[in-house]
Amino acid sequence: MDKKFEPPCTFSERARQLTSSAIREILKVTEQPDVISFAGGLPSPDGFPVEVVRQAFERVLSASARSALQYGPTEGYAPLRAWVAEDLNRQGADVTAENILIVSGSQQGLDLLGKTLIDTGSKVLVETPSYLGALQSFSQYQPQYVSVPSDDDGLLPDAITPELASGGRFLYALPNFQNPTGRTLTRQRREALVANAARLGLPIIEDDPYGELRYAGEPQPGLLALGGECGANVIRLGSFSKVLAPGLRLGYICASREIIHKLVLAKQATDLHTASLTQMAVYEIVKDGFLDGHLPRVRELYRKQCEIMLEALQRAFPAGARWTRPEGGMFVWVTLAPHIDSTGLLQRAIQEKVAFVPGAPFYAGAAERNTLRLSFVTVPEEKIRRGVAILGRLIAES
Amino acid sequence: MDKKFEPPCTFSERARQLTSSAIREILKVTEQPDVISFAGGLPSPDGFPVEVVRQAFERVLSASARSALQYGPTEGYAPLRAWVAEDLNRQGADVTAENILIVSGSQQGLDLLGKTLIDTGSKVLVETPSYLGALQSFSQYQPQYVSVPSDDDGLLPDAITPELASGGRFLYALPNFQNPTGRTLTRQRREALVANAARLGLPIIEDDPYGELRYAGEPQPGLLALGGECGANVIRLGSFSKVLAPGLRLGYICASREIIHKLVLAKQATDLHTASLTQMAVYEIVKDGFLDGHLPRVRELYRKQCEIMLEALQRAFPAGARWTRPEGGMFVWVTLAPHIDSTGLLQRAIQEKVAFVPGAPFYAGAAERNTLRLSFVTVPEEKIRRGVAILGRLIAES
Repeated sequence: MDKKFEPPCTFSERARQLTSSAIREILKVTEQPDVISFAGGLPSPDGFPVEVVRQAFERVLSASARSALQYGPTEGYAPLRAWVAEDLNRQGADVTAENILIVSGSQQGLDLLGKTLIDTGSKVLVETPSYLGALQSFSQYQPQYVSVPSDDDGLLPDAITPELASGGRFLYALPNFQNPTGRTLTRQRREALVANAARLGLPIIEDDPYGELRYAGEPQPGLLALGGECGANVIRLGSFSKVLAPGLRLGYICASREIIHKLVLAKQATDLHTASLTQMAVYEIVKDGFLDGHLPRVRELYRKQCEIMLEALQRAFPAGARWTRPEGGMFVWVTLAPHIDSTGLLQRAIQEKVAFVPGAPFYAGAAERNTLRLSFVTVPEEKIRRGVAILGRLIAES
Repeated sequence: MDKKFEPPCTFSERARQLTSSAIREILKVTEQPDVISFAGGLPSPDGFPVEVVRQAFERVLSASARSALQYGPTEGYAPLRAWVAEDLNRQGADVTAENILIVSGSQQGLDLLGKTLIDTGSKVLVETPSYLGALQSFSQYQPQYVSVPSDDDGLLPDAITPELASGGRFLYALPNFQNPTGRTLTRQRREALVANAARLGLPIIEDDPYGELRYAGEPQPGLLALGGECGANVIRLGSFSKVLAPGLRLGYICASREIIHKLVLAKQATDLHTASLTQMAVYEIVKDGFLDGHLPRVRELYRKQCEIMLEALQRAFPAGARWTRPEGGMFVWVTLAPHIDSTGLLQRAIQEKVAFVPGAPFYAGAAERNTLRLSFVTVPEEKIRRGVAILGRLIAES
C-alpha cells in the first residue's frame, strides 16, 4: 500500500517532534520471553480480580445492556462519578460528583490537562526526575519545563520560589511511590508544598496511580485533601489501572467545576466519552466495598516482590550503587557511581538478556545519566535474583 | 469545593476557545422523556446484538483474562488489526495490518489526525456542510477551514481547484449518507475526486461510519479503494459504533505506514492504547462473519424508520420545504424557505416538546440558516408522525 500512498502528507510541527526514542527501540527486545525484564511498568496480573470482573460484565450485559452499549455522557457514568467523589471524601477531600470527570485511563487525563492548560512556551513545573508518560503528554503542547529540585524524600517545597513559580501553569507531582523513583513525599513537605502553592497561586496536578498500593510506612494525606484546607488549587488524577486492571483503561480527574467544564469540552472533541460498558462494570465491582478486601491482597503481593528485589540488590550490587526503598508501588530507583552511564549499561545488559529503563528520559532538564529504574512486580523471584546478579556484575565491571 | 479552589488557573488559548454551544444548551431539554427528539445521533439500541456481545465478553474473560486486563500495544490487538485490513481488502483496498491503528472510537481518530496533521492556520478542506464532531476535533488545532461547494449528490470535485487545494493539509469527506445531510457521493464524483486529489497532492480523510448501513441504491466503492488505483493518499476512518454498538468506543484508522507511525506516537501520549478487553471481545464477535448476518437486520430496521420519516415529511411539511432521501444511515436534511431561521424554529418546537438540530453549526464557513437535521432511527413510528406534524405546522406558520 505504501508505494501507492503518494504524495506524502505534511505533518504538523507537533507530529514532527514526536519520534520513537532510542530506548523504546532497545526495549523492544524485552518482549522476548527469555529476557528478564525490569523495564515494564505493568502491574502484576496475579492481582487482577478476574472472576469479579467477569461477573460484573456479565451482570451489566444481562441487566442493562441497552444503556451499557449506547453513547453516554462525556462527564462519565453518574453513579461512578459519585462513588469516586465519596471515595476521595473518605480520604479527607471535600468534593462532589460534579468535580469528577471519568477518563479513558489517567494517561488521557494528562493529555486533557495538557490540552486545556498549556500553550506553546507555557512554564510547567515538574519533579526531578518525573514520570516519562506525563512529560510525553505535556510535550505535545510544547511547554517550557522547569525542574524542581528533589532529594530522597521527594521534591523540595522551599525550592519553589516566587521566581520559579511565576507564570507557571501548574506543578505536576506524584507524591506517592513516584514513578520512576519510588519516593514518597513526607507529611511535612506535603503541608509546606500546598501552603506554598496556595500563596504563589500555583495549581498542582497530583497524580496518584499507586497511592492504594502502600505496603510499608504510614499513609499520608493526599495533596487534594491538604490543599482544600489551605486554599491551594489541586487537580487530582486517579486510576483504576493499579487497583483493578489497566486493560480496562479507566481513570478520573478531580478538579474545580470550572476546570471540569473545560475538560469536558476538550474530552468531547477528543473521544466523546469513556466506554459506558466499562464504567458500569467497574461501578458494579467497586460500589459495595470490594476494594477494601481486594487491595490488602495486592499490597501483600507487591510487598513480597519489593522485598525480594531489595534483598537481591543488597546481595549483588557493588559499593557505590545506592537505591530507594519504596513504601509502596512498583519501582526502585538506582543511582550508580557517577562515571557509569546507564544507557551503555543497558546495552551490555541486553546482551545478557536483562533489561531495565535508564534514568535519562525521566528528566525534563539535565539528566543524571548514572540512574536507572527497576520494576519488580511481574518478575518471578528466581529471575529477580538472577537478573539483579547479572546487573551487579556488569556494574562492578563498569 | 469550588470556593476553596482559589486561585484560579490560566487556561490555554485552545481551552478558552472551547465553549458550550447555545444549541447544546437548548438540546439538554431533549433528555426529558416527554420530548420527541429528532436531535440525537444515537443508533437504535434495537440493533445492538446484546446476547452476542455478552457471550464474547464472557468468552474472553473466561479464556484470556490476564492479557485482556493487562496493558496492550498502542497499535491495537493484532488479530483485530488483521481482521480490519482483510475486511477493507474485501471491499477493494490493498492494505495490511500494519496500515491499521485501533482507536477508542472514530472521534479519537479525528482528534489524532488533527493533532498530527494540523498546525495553527493550516488549511483544511471540508464539505458544505460537514460533520460537527469533526469540526470540533480539528478546531482544537486551530486550522483555517475552506468549504468545498456541494449539491444534492455531495461535494463537487471540480470545485477543488489547484488554488483551493494549495497548501491544504487534507480534505475531510464523508462520502456515504453524510452526517448531517444523508447525501451520498456518486460513483462518478468519487472517481473524479480521488483523481483530482492525486493530481493536486491533497490527502483525503474518508470518514465512513455509516457505509455498512445502506438500505437503498447501489453500494459505491470507497475512496480508499479508488484512491489506491490512482495514487491518491486516502486515510480512512471506520467505526464499530454503528455496526455493533457505540458504547464500546471502538474504531480504526487505515493509512500509510508513515502516517500510522506518527499516529501511534500521538496515541501513546494521548491514552496509551485502546482497552484490550474491548478489542478482544469485538474480535471474538466479528472474526467468524457475524456481521454478514447481523447487518441486514440493522439495515432493515433503519430502512423502515427512514421510510416512516419520509412519508411523514411528505404528508406534513409545507410547500417550500425540501429534504434529502438518504440511501442509508441515520439522517434527513431539510432545507426550508430562505426566510426561516431554524434556530428560531427550534425554540418554538421545544415549547411543543419536539427537538432537532439546526443546520448552522454544521457549516465551517457561512451557514445556510434555513436548514436542519432530523435523526429518525430511535424514534417510534407514532412519535415520528406526531413530531413531524408539529414541525410542519410551525414551519407553515413561520
